[in-house]
Parts: sequence; structure tokens; C-alpha cells
Amino acid sequence: MSTKGQTTRSRLLAVGLDTISVEGLTGLTLGGLAVEAGVSKSGLFAHFKSKEDLQLSILDEAVRLAGAHVVAPAMNVEPGLPRLRAIVENWLGWSTRSGLRGGCPMAAAIFELDDLSGEVRDRIVEQEAAWRGFLTALVREAVSCGHLPKTVDVDQFVWELFGIYLSHHASSRFLRDPQARDRAGRAFAALLRRAGKRDAQ
Amino acid sequence: MSTKGQTTRSRLLAVGLDTISVEGLTGLTLGGLAVEAGVSKSGLFAHFKSKEDLQLSILDEAVRLAGAHVVAPAMNVEPGLPRLRAIVENWLGWSTRSGLRGGCPMAAAIFELDDLSGEVRDRIVEQEAAWRGFLTALVREAVSCGHLPKTVDVDQFVWELFGIYLSHHASSRFLRDPQARDRAGRAFAALLRRAGKRDAQ
Repeated sequence: MSTKGQTTRSRLLAVGLDTISVEGLTGLTLGGLAVEAGVSKSGLFAHFKSKEDLQLSILDEAVRLAGAHVVAPAMNVEPGLPRLRAIVENWLGWSTRSGLRGGCPMAAAIFELDDLSGEVRDRIVEQEAAWRGFLTALVREAVSCGHLPKTVDVDQFVWELFGIYLSHHASSRFLRDPQARDRAGRAFAALLRRAGKRDAQ
Repeated sequence: MSTKGQTTRSRLLAVGLDTISVEGLTGLTLGGLAVEAGVSKSGLFAHFKSKEDLQLSILDEAVRLAGAHVVAPAMNVEPGLPRLRAIVENWLGWSTRSGLRGGCPMAAAIFELDDLSGEVRDRIVEQEAAWRGFLTALVREAVSCGHLPKTVDVDQFVWELFGIYLSHHASSRFLRDPQARDRAGRAFAALLRRAGKRDAQ
């Protein structure tokens, strides 16, 4: 594909991702996106063969963006608990720091598509599993490094960490509570203490 | 309003609530609801003057249903920690036990409308505040009864309880994880222990 084609595709993905971060996947329309991105509808179809194809591409773009803003900077941090802390720090409120107007598109999609079926739901299931798997690996690494004891229930830890993330999302974006970040930090500190975090960490 | 009018209104609200539990507020259309409820579109407008009016009425109906299935049965339970436990027990997965096909409409709306504005969002903000206030009062009651110590940070407790609810919603409905209920129970037990629950409770 030509450079111009790449640029148009990138712009469509960026505008589409911003739209779904505010309005959800259901709020995305092909016509609306074409207008917002300044592309004709036939120009849009040159890049995405259907609305579903567009949604899937936007979700992949969301993962790429989260990778750049949440994961990449933390990979320079020492493995174990320091890296886990860095990931959690970057994860909370990542969409705003990535330049999106709205909240985390994956979190919203989890509540939007939970009772539906189809390829878009399946993609979110895969993305969620990959992210959960990554968090699980980080907690295991903290155990290997001796920062957390071997007795920690890793799956339960990650399950509760998701709860902290979701409660932070609801309280920061929906309630616009200025204390959201502080509450999430306290909850995470308590989760680490309960897991048996070594005092030095 | 005549009994027949009441019945039609009730049917529209019940069908509409079931629809939003599956498809979210955005998934509700006046035409679709009229067909599903077996009412003409003009018949529907005899009860609701706009889509927004319908959405607000459905959200109120959701609160009424949750009141009947979550709150009412727990009010027969001894005040303090036993009642708080009963409320949490009834809250987790309440929509299914209330006969809805989908998940909690309020939880979904919190993620659907967080970055939007308008009367429907405002109604959810009010409903959320009322529910958070009720949970806060229950935790305070557990303190008054001597089941939890006076040192408990009640707002933080309720904030984390919301996280457990949301993680349970995501894991039970989106991931369809059979362990969701067990994980929520373990997280709640840990939250109570950290709050300094008396051993006898």
C-alpha cells in the first residue's frame, strides 16, 4: 500500500479509536467516521471491507496504543514488583495519557458486548485473555524474584487487580471523583500487603 | 390511567429493561421495542413522550427490580454485618435472578455513558449515588453494631466493594468464568478481614 494509503488508514484508525473511547463500539458509524476523518465513504471502504472489519482494526489499534503507553515504558523498569507497580501505574487512566478523549475502549466493550456474540466480542475476549496472561506473568515474575511469597494466589490477585482497575475507571470517568487515583493506590497497596509483599519492596 | 394502560406500560418497561440488559441503552429503539412488546408505535408514544423519557423510565424500573431482589429480602436479616453480607450476596448476579437475560443495566450504563452528557447520564449518576450511599450506611451500621471497628475507612471499603462487583460482572458475564462467584466471595472475605471484622461475625 502507498504511503498516502497508510496515512489515510492510520487517520481512520486514530479517529475511530477516539470515537469509540467516547461513544463505545455501537456509537461508531461508517458515515460519521468518513466525515470526521475527511475521507469519502468509498475511500473508507478501500481500507476496511465492513463495519466489523473496521471495529476489529480499531480494537487492534487500541492494543497497539496501550502497548506503547502502558507496557513499553515499564519494560525498562527492574523485573519483579517494581515492574508490576509500573504497569499498574501506567494502566490506570492510560487512555487519557495516550491522547484519547474517552475511557478505556476494552473496559467499555467488556460491558457493552458481554451478552452479545460475534467476531468483535471474540476479539475482545482474546485481548482480555492476553492482558490477563501478561499481568499473571508479571505477578509470577515478582514471585520468582522473591518480592512476593510462593503462597500468593496469582489468579485471585489478578482478578482483584481487575476490580481495582474497573472501580478506578468508573470513579474517575463516570463519577469524575478526584480521589479515584488515590483510592486505587490504596487498594493496590492493600492487595500487595495481603499477598505477603516483602517489607523491602 | 386505566388498568389496560398500566399493563401496556408495565409490559413496555419489562421488555425494554430486558433489551437494555442485553444490548445497552444504545441498543434500544422505539420501533424495535414496539414490535417486541406487541404495541403500535403510537401506543408506545401514549406512554413515553420520547426515547429519553423511555430510557429514564426503564432505568427507574431497573432500580425497582433491584430493590425487590437485592434490598427487600436482606431487610429481614439482622442489621450489621449479617445484613451487609446478605446485600452483597443478593447484589452479585442480581440481574439473572431477577429474570433478565443480560447483565446489570446500571453497571453497563456506567461504562456506556461515562464520557457523554445528558439527562440519562444524570439519572445514572443519581442512582449510583443512592446505591453507594445505601452501601455506606450498611457499613456504618456494621460499625455501630460493633461488627466492624470504628477505624474502618468506610468510603474506601465501599469503593473496593464496587471493584469486586465490577470484576465479578466482567468475569461472570463477559468471560463466563464459573469461578467468578467464588473469587468475589474470597475478595469480599479479605476486604472484611482487612477492615478488622470481629472473629465472631
